[in-house]
Amino acid sequence: MQKKHYLCSLIMVTTDLHAELDRLSVSYGADRMVVLVAASVAPVWQKFFSDRFRVLVLADGEENKSLDTLQRVWDFLFEADITRSGLLLCVGGGTVTDLGGLAAATYKRGIHYINIPTTLLAMVDAAVGGKTGINYRGLKNAVGAFYPPVETIVWPEWLSTLPAEQLLSGFAEMLKTGLLADGQKIPQAEGLWQRLMQYDMERMDPTELTPLIADCIAVKQYIVTADPSETGLRKTLNLGHTFGHALEETAFAETKNGAQTGLLHGHAVLYGLIAELYLSHTLLGCEREALQQLTQRMIHYYGRPACKCTDRERIIRLMHQDKKNERATEINCTLLRSTGHPVINQIITDAQADEALEYLFSL
Amino acid sequence: MQKKHYLCSLIMVTTDLHAELDRLSVSYGADRMVVLVAASVAPVWQKFFSDRFRVLVLADGEENKSLDTLQRVWDFLFEADITRSGLLLCVGGGTVTDLGGLAAATYKRGIHYINIPTTLLAMVDAAVGGKTGINYRGLKNAVGAFYPPVETIVWPEWLSTLPAEQLLSGFAEMLKTGLLADGQKIPQAEGLWQRLMQYDMERMDPTELTPLIADCIAVKQYIVTADPSETGLRKTLNLGHTFGHALEETAFAETKNGAQTGLLHGHAVLYGLIAELYLSHTLLGCEREALQQLTQRMIHYYGRPACKCTDRERIIRLMHQDKKNERATEINCTLLRSTGHPVINQIITDAQADEALEYLFSL
Repeated sequence: MQKKHYLCSLIMVTTDLHAELDRLSVSYGADRMVVLVAASVAPVWQKFFSDRFRVLVLADGEENKSLDTLQRVWDFLFEADITRSGLLLCVGGGTVTDLGGLAAATYKRGIHYINIPTTLLAMVDAAVGGKTGINYRGLKNAVGAFYPPVETIVWPEWLSTLPAEQLLSGFAEMLKTGLLADGQKIPQAEGLWQRLMQYDMERMDPTELTPLIADCIAVKQYIVTADPSETGLRKTLNLGHTFGHALEETAFAETKNGAQTGLLHGHAVLYGLIAELYLSHTLLGCEREALQQLTQRMIHYYGRPACKCTDRERIIRLMHQDKKNERATEINCTLLRSTGHPVINQIITDAQADEALEYLFSL
Repeated sequence: MQKKHYLCSLIMVTTDLHAELDRLSVSYGADRMVVLVAASVAPVWQKFFSDRFRVLVLADGEENKSLDTLQRVWDFLFEADITRSGLLLCVGGGTVTDLGGLAAATYKRGIHYINIPTTLLAMVDAAVGGKTGINYRGLKNAVGAFYPPVETIVWPEWLSTLPAEQLLSGFAEMLKTGLLADGQKIPQAEGLWQRLMQYDMERMDPTELTPLIADCIAVKQYIVTADPSETGLRKTLNLGHTFGHALEETAFAETKNGAQTGLLHGHAVLYGLIAELYLSHTLLGCEREALQQLTQRMIHYYGRPACKCTDRERIIRLMHQDKKNERATEINCTLLRSTGHPVINQIITDAQADEALEYLFSL
């Protein structure tokens, strides 16, 4: 069997997951397929699909995206006697697709894997683009690799299993994609921001979401294919994430102290978008409209950030440790010159970061 | 700074390592450089080069190519605050370059690294081609990645620090390259096997080795560049390694039991070459001459394999678990149709493997 490296993986949105699974061993000449599945969707998987494959169930939650879990997956692959022609299916949210992808990247120097994202967030973000990783020393994705799945299969049916909070979290990444989309030269990007603004977040109907999901994936895929290893264009996808990651890590630390109940990734990104759109306005003259639209949605649907009481110094210190920084001492953001026109590698000062946080926490 | 992926890394043989080190931060725009160095060469490194860089000394020996050591390296990189623009220098034998390469591949999803091989084996093999890895569950390189260094710097001066056994071990990989070379269309490959046969192994003079090293590297580099992810041509480099790895692992297990004193990688490869040239002769009609030449050198310089008393079943079982196998049940070898004309993916039976081992142990 020829082993190929697919920089641009196939992404498909399907209503018939059974048919796609039937096709996989033929498509990839796999002699054996095994499955990682998130505990939260394991009952659904096992009810409909489990009879075919050996399965390892992984506990949900960012705290399980660890070296210990990675070792469990390596062990599972060795015990299942997976060769370089084997195929690993990763069924779950970003925890499973990120960690499973890293296991596939490093097991016997790399085997093929397929992502089957089950959360909205994973569908539009984690499962597309080939970033894999685990958390290490309290830093998100501190250990990882660029290693794309050969295919990502989106089955929108999963969305009906999700609580509203999870849909909101994924929707925030879609909003980010919408903010970047207008400058991209593919039909799916056209008017994406406006269409997202028209989506009825009150009802959050999964069926109406499907075409928007497909378009957000197409935009991300376009950007990632143009720049797989993040030397330029792909960095635009970091919009909202310099602040977002630091807020998420702060909230994660506070959760462990019992000080609050955690912060979903998408919620953190939404707050990050607000901080970075504020800086886009003050530093680059970006129009205020998108910032206002996001703020209005934050207040109505996401709620204000719960970590507002924590000291801002800590958040700024975390931003200095961000993987995206090219130099050890910088804070590096993607900002917008205007909606649809991102600019990468904007170095901001601690004072500017502090001002943006102050703005966010004052809303 | 642009982050590039170099499938074909630069390899240079230099007499002035100081000058090359001076150039690196400019060549790669690195904001910070740190060094992994093998304990065996740490005194030399620290005497001549240490004042410039932060250093982590790694214990020598295959048993340290472990997940524990990988974690120590990740921790070292975090503590040194290395960003994605940092540069990691790996100074040592294959243990340091393989493990350091995997650390570089996975730290923050990949940073640039430079290999500075200090053993003959690493110069002609491990440090060239981008295979990285650690041992896991007793299997060699069971966890790893394809991730080439941006540059490999060969400073032949290191060879004068090596005991004769180490030079012999590296020379075995050069012999393997010589057996493959004649079919490759680059000038360095021409007559390489004959030139290796003319080299005076009695004296093992490092200076006379340098041009042969440069040619062996060129041949390996040519093959690896044509097929970086080992779908075809690169598999020819596995000549001698299906048997070689299994013999090495057996010896390693016996060392732990105190039954023998270990087996250097190159020595294991030499025994593997003899077993596989025997099969090349019996199965594919390859001429006997190269087999006889290798056997003569084994008897004079390498000594007969010490693991001859162990049961052959165990060695065969290990060959079934080799990463190179495309199917879980096969033993997959590269064999020679004639000197310079390898054929990949030769599936051999347990009986054939047993016969080759019997031949090897009867010499």
